[in-house]
Amino acid sequence: MEIKIVQEKLAKALSNVSRVAAGSRAALPILNNVLIRVDEGKVSLTTTNLDMAVVSYLPATQSKNGVVTVPARLMAEFVSNLPRGELVEISAQNDKVMIKAGGYNSTINGAAADDFPELPEIDDNKVVKFQMSVEDFKAGLSQVMIAASSDTTRPALTGVYFNTYEGGLYLAATDGYRLAEKKFIDKVDSEVMAIVPTTSLQEVLRSLSDDVQEIEIWFDETQVRFKLDEIEVTSKLIDGSFPDYRQLIPKETEIGLELKRDELIRITKLAALFAKEVGGSITCESSVEKGGFIVASVANELGENNSEIKTTIDQDGKVTLNSRFLLDALNVLSGDKVKFGFSNKLDPVVLRAAESGEDNYIHIIMPLKG
Amino acid sequence: MEIKIVQEKLAKALSNVSRVAAGSRAALPILNNVLIRVDEGKVSLTTTNLDMAVVSYLPATQSKNGVVTVPARLMAEFVSNLPRGELVEISAQNDKVMIKAGGYNSTINGAAADDFPELPEIDDNKVVKFQMSVEDFKAGLSQVMIAASSDTTRPALTGVYFNTYEGGLYLAATDGYRLAEKKFIDKVDSEVMAIVPTTSLQEVLRSLSDDVQEIEIWFDETQVRFKLDEIEVTSKLIDGSFPDYRQLIPKETEIGLELKRDELIRITKLAALFAKEVGGSITCESSVEKGGFIVASVANELGENNSEIKTTIDQDGKVTLNSRFLLDALNVLSGDKVKFGFSNKLDPVVLRAAESGEDNYIHIIMPLKG
Repeated sequence: MEIKIVQEKLAKALSNVSRVAAGSRAALPILNNVLIRVDEGKVSLTTTNLDMAVVSYLPATQSKNGVVTVPARLMAEFVSNLPRGELVEISAQNDKVMIKAGGYNSTINGAAADDFPELPEIDDNKVVKFQMSVEDFKAGLSQVMIAASSDTTRPALTGVYFNTYEGGLYLAATDGYRLAEKKFIDKVDSEVMAIVPTTSLQEVLRSLSDDVQEIEIWFDETQVRFKLDEIEVTSKLIDGSFPDYRQLIPKETEIGLELKRDELIRITKLAALFAKEVGGSITCESSVEKGGFIVASVANELGENNSEIKTTIDQDGKVTLNSRFLLDALNVLSGDKVKFGFSNKLDPVVLRAAESGEDNYIHIIMPLKG
Repeated sequence: MEIKIVQEKLAKALSNVSRVAAGSRAALPILNNVLIRVDEGKVSLTTTNLDMAVVSYLPATQSKNGVVTVPARLMAEFVSNLPRGELVEISAQNDKVMIKAGGYNSTINGAAADDFPELPEIDDNKVVKFQMSVEDFKAGLSQVMIAASSDTTRPALTGVYFNTYEGGLYLAATDGYRLAEKKFIDKVDSEVMAIVPTTSLQEVLRSLSDDVQEIEIWFDETQVRFKLDEIEVTSKLIDGSFPDYRQLIPKETEIGLELKRDELIRITKLAALFAKEVGGSITCESSVEKGGFIVASVANELGENNSEIKTTIDQDGKVTLNSRFLLDALNVLSGDKVKFGFSNKLDPVVLRAAESGEDNYIHIIMPLKG
């Protein structure tokens, strides 16, 4: 095997794939390695942690076919420290990889490519494909992912649910205490119901660079593949059924307030400071008498706090929420104003952006028993 | 007690003092608190961890005398989240502190000021004073501090040694493996030999803001005080004797090379990547035959590496160093070129900036047994 590639392209590709190489925690040492394959001038770099694989493709100036694996992080760090613009020569012999660039010489001890786990294929004829702009994908995904659970005892809740409904493509996540749903595409031709691990989605987000405009998403029965320009991230789907979440979204709420997002963030943060001892619990109240929306923390050892946003109120109401969940939602909502909808103490709170055209995202938070 | 202060001034002062308040780890709970004292329109905020105290002074728009203590971090976080420009009203009654700003209201439970530890005085008549520009202080201190030890079994080495010698003021630090010395002032009238804890110096560095030009340093027998514009940091000195370090600095070295700093950093980093298994050990070699300066890692399980800087060499030499120590030194040296001086395998390596006028800093690294 032999290739010559300019430093910056190689460094970028290695940095993209080396994150997935499992580091010293890997049960199989070969999972720390990157598989370098050269085939007719095309170079591919592959890493996998068995749940997920990342492949980065790049062109080589000169090349001889071959395949080898080397520790991914060492290789990535080495190449990233070489000078920009330098032509990096890589050659392999007996599982040893020689790297040369100007006056810089290294030999990295690799391992035979035969030991590298085979990556499952996706059958091109059996896949469902979607395409969207990277910008929409990034923005929407980060709005949804925050509601996913980190509790691995309920695997289905640790993922993001890609699902088609009444002709549109939706992404949803819930940890049982809150729920986020975003409509990604208004009209699609195919159908999908698939739970994608949040860890894989985070990897996809990290792989997105500014020069990639479009993302293709392929689903088969058990896998999903995210195709960017020169990178493919393939992940197993989570095997399980996602809760029938649409029934949890209230059709309407008794009280609906339009509030400035930055003010609501501020008073929630202030109340949260005092709510540390009580698990972040704060009360949100609309008061006709006080003529405003009041966020307060419960009096405790630290002290107490209440702040008010003056606004027109025509109905009294009160709900107790986890301040962290409210802040998480407020931080990902778009626009200057939010709709804060609530009914009685036990009904879910509904948050949306108040601006028109922003109604494709909804965030639900279950109240705490106040 | 009663004061009115604009949000940004109060927030800045609280942020400066709250770092020292010991958090929940404090043995004495009152050390988590900030002491707020109002005396004839002057407000002072004080925190201490018993080894060190920080006082921040600020003017109040309106005030009534009094004194109280409240949890420093809660107060700092609360005020920092209030809107800029808002006038913050603080009043105290029965150890409860009320904070009001526009629609934001809080009551923080405080504690009686009587329980707050008394701060030791510095006798104005018995102090030795130095003054220098903040810019010089910052730059020089960061060059010296990196060589201090973190091993608390030898307390004297965990500090920076302020000492006068032949009419100049010097700062030095050593952990037994490396040594850094900087001449701060060419000519001073007074004498000092004092070891200042690195932790206190870090706090002083964090307290420096861009609008402070000059720093005054006061020493008495057991304490040091750093006086900035509106902040005073007072610290106990370390009780112990600093090694007679000047005898460790070689008068000259057999080989002295001028090398580009960025190139030397690069090849040291590359070699260090391969040296992780051998405690960071790398070899530096000047070779007449190869016509250059070569940094190499020893062959081991990962592989091996060597890189060369082409330069005129008139004498062969070789020394084994800890790559981290070399990188630390190279990163704080000033200018584009460094003088790399070494003799035989066991003599210390001497690093200096190569540019003229930069000879007030010297860094010594003890070799490893190669």
